[in-house]
Amino acid sequence: MTLIYLLDMFGTAVFAASGVLLAGRLRMDPFGVVVLASVTAIGGGTIRDMALGATPVFWITDTNYLWVIFLTCLISMIAIRRPRQMPWYILPVADAVGLAVFVAIGVEKALRFGATPMVAVIMGVITGCGGGVIRDVLAREIPMVLRTEVYATACILGGIVHTTALSMGVAASVATLAGIITTLTIRLAAIRWHLSLPTFALRN
Amino acid sequence: MTLIYLLDMFGTAVFAASGVLLAGRLRMDPFGVVVLASVTAIGGGTIRDMALGATPVFWITDTNYLWVIFLTCLISMIAIRRPRQMPWYILPVADAVGLAVFVAIGVEKALRFGATPMVAVIMGVITGCGGGVIRDVLAREIPMVLRTEVYATACILGGIVHTTALSMGVAASVATLAGIITTLTIRLAAIRWHLSLPTFALRN
Amino acid sequence: MTLIYLLDMFGTAVFAASGVLLAGRLRMDPFGVVVLASVTAIGGGTIRDMALGATPVFWITDTNYLWVIFLTCLISMIAIRRPRQMPWYILPVADAVGLAVFVAIGVEKALRFGATPMVAVIMGVITGCGGGVIRDVLAREIPMVLRTEVYATACILGGIVHTTALSMGVAASVATLAGIITTLTIRLAAIRWHLSLPTFALRN
Repeated sequence: MTLIYLLDMFGTAVFAASGVLLAGRLRMDPFGVVVLASVTAIGGGTIRDMALGATPVFWITDTNYLWVIFLTCLISMIAIRRPRQMPWYILPVADAVGLAVFVAIGVEKALRFGATPMVAVIMGVITGCGGGVIRDVLAREIPMVLRTEVYATACILGGIVHTTALSMGVAASVATLAGIITTLTIRLAAIRWHLSLPTFALRN
Repeated sequence: MTLIYLLDMFGTAVFAASGVLLAGRLRMDPFGVVVLASVTAIGGGTIRDMALGATPVFWITDTNYLWVIFLTCLISMIAIRRPRQMPWYILPVADAVGLAVFVAIGVEKALRFGATPMVAVIMGVITGCGGGVIRDVLAREIPMVLRTEVYATACILGGIVHTTALSMGVAASVATLAGIITTLTIRLAAIRWHLSLPTFALRN
Repeated sequence: MTLIYLLDMFGTAVFAASGVLLAGRLRMDPFGVVVLASVTAIGGGTIRDMALGATPVFWITDTNYLWVIFLTCLISMIAIRRPRQMPWYILPVADAVGLAVFVAIGVEKALRFGATPMVAVIMGVITGCGGGVIRDVLAREIPMVLRTEVYATACILGGIVHTTALSMGVAASVATLAGIITTLTIRLAAIRWHLSLPTFALRN
């Protein structure tokens, strides 16, 4: 479980960095940067914990999350002045790792609080995607995950593999790993080949 | 109470369908459709339960809500390709029924958790209108209920009739019914005659 | 503590009035006015209580907050027809008083629920700024606090003074007062001299 915890901190840092980048495009002041980074990194898990009744929410009891966010903001604001000079795939790939871990953590926590497998998958999706949705709402954009290639779909499939493996009696650590690998593989494939689902469009 | 439960499921389906329609106008992918349908259908009740401390929230303990939403999305995406071919009044009228039931359920649940009548009315309004507000925020529109003809006002009056009847010793089922009929009648009248309150405008 | 309670009610009224003003600019109907006033006045504390698990949230157990909001809406809609005729500094200065009190209340409540000083400061910021963020999101604006001169920064510094004083053994009432004065002074200075932090901007 220590590996999962380290990956969780990595995911927190990556999600925070994506908030910093958006804040930088909107020319926010340092506080705005920290807020956008924080809601991106811990917003999904906060909604999950509030809905489950797992209060006080996770970052109140374990403040490592907050320290990781603050450090990420500090380092990002100093280091990233020209995001174009980074290879384009670095942030999406790191984001995919964070996403996969967040989904697995959400699934696992929901099951621990007595949720059914279906609800656990939804809690995994909320944990993985919720923060990005709040970030985009605050920045006045239509949330990316509602429109982007196979983002939340990867979370759903990862969550289904995770819960199905558990219900077939697979060991918890193996089921978690299978879920993470599923989410990650689908998301990386979507990034690599620009996969997207057909959209549902209505003539108005 | 079985009738209320059936109406609750009907309301859930109708609210979900309104989310599907908006998602279709925004050309979302199937996942975006399900998300927008879900927040519309269960968003208000979720805020209510979080504020009351009624956790885990209702759709975690009774997953019928989720199944109704998924089925509604599936059927809507297949059946509704040209919303203009439906008579225009079908969705608003169905929405009014769902709204009236949601308000009554919110009032009733708040009272069960020890809220005062005033708070119960507010919880009724949150249950009825909260989902639509989140839907509109995600779709980057100013929430319809803040601007539309006698929408939330119908909820407030329905909630007041409901709680007043109870405080006068009327049987719970009769009070609930009186509340539902009040909300529904006012809302239908508003739809039929395009009633709206005078707006409050400031010269800036 | 009675003074704090009175200041809390004053802050609730001022925050509600700022919601009324925005609703008036958007030509909302009276219900929209009340909603925008309410989320501005009690939104931040509601998020705080949900995250802490302090449910039912504060305005469910003490309905004075709701009465203050309703009265403020009523009076504002009657009295404020031409906001330009008010001296420009009245609302920002009153808002600064409300903000300083809300931060102190958030810090104090978080500590009472066992939060660490860092989390308490964050809860202070959420209590002070959360309502304004929701107000701006509903009105489809990028939240003011993410962009404005030393708004949230004042809250952070006030919270730090408050918690540091407590940890140094200062009496609770003195620490609270020190926190309030810090937030208020910094915010008033920012209003008076248009202070703002340098923004973080990325070339894209």
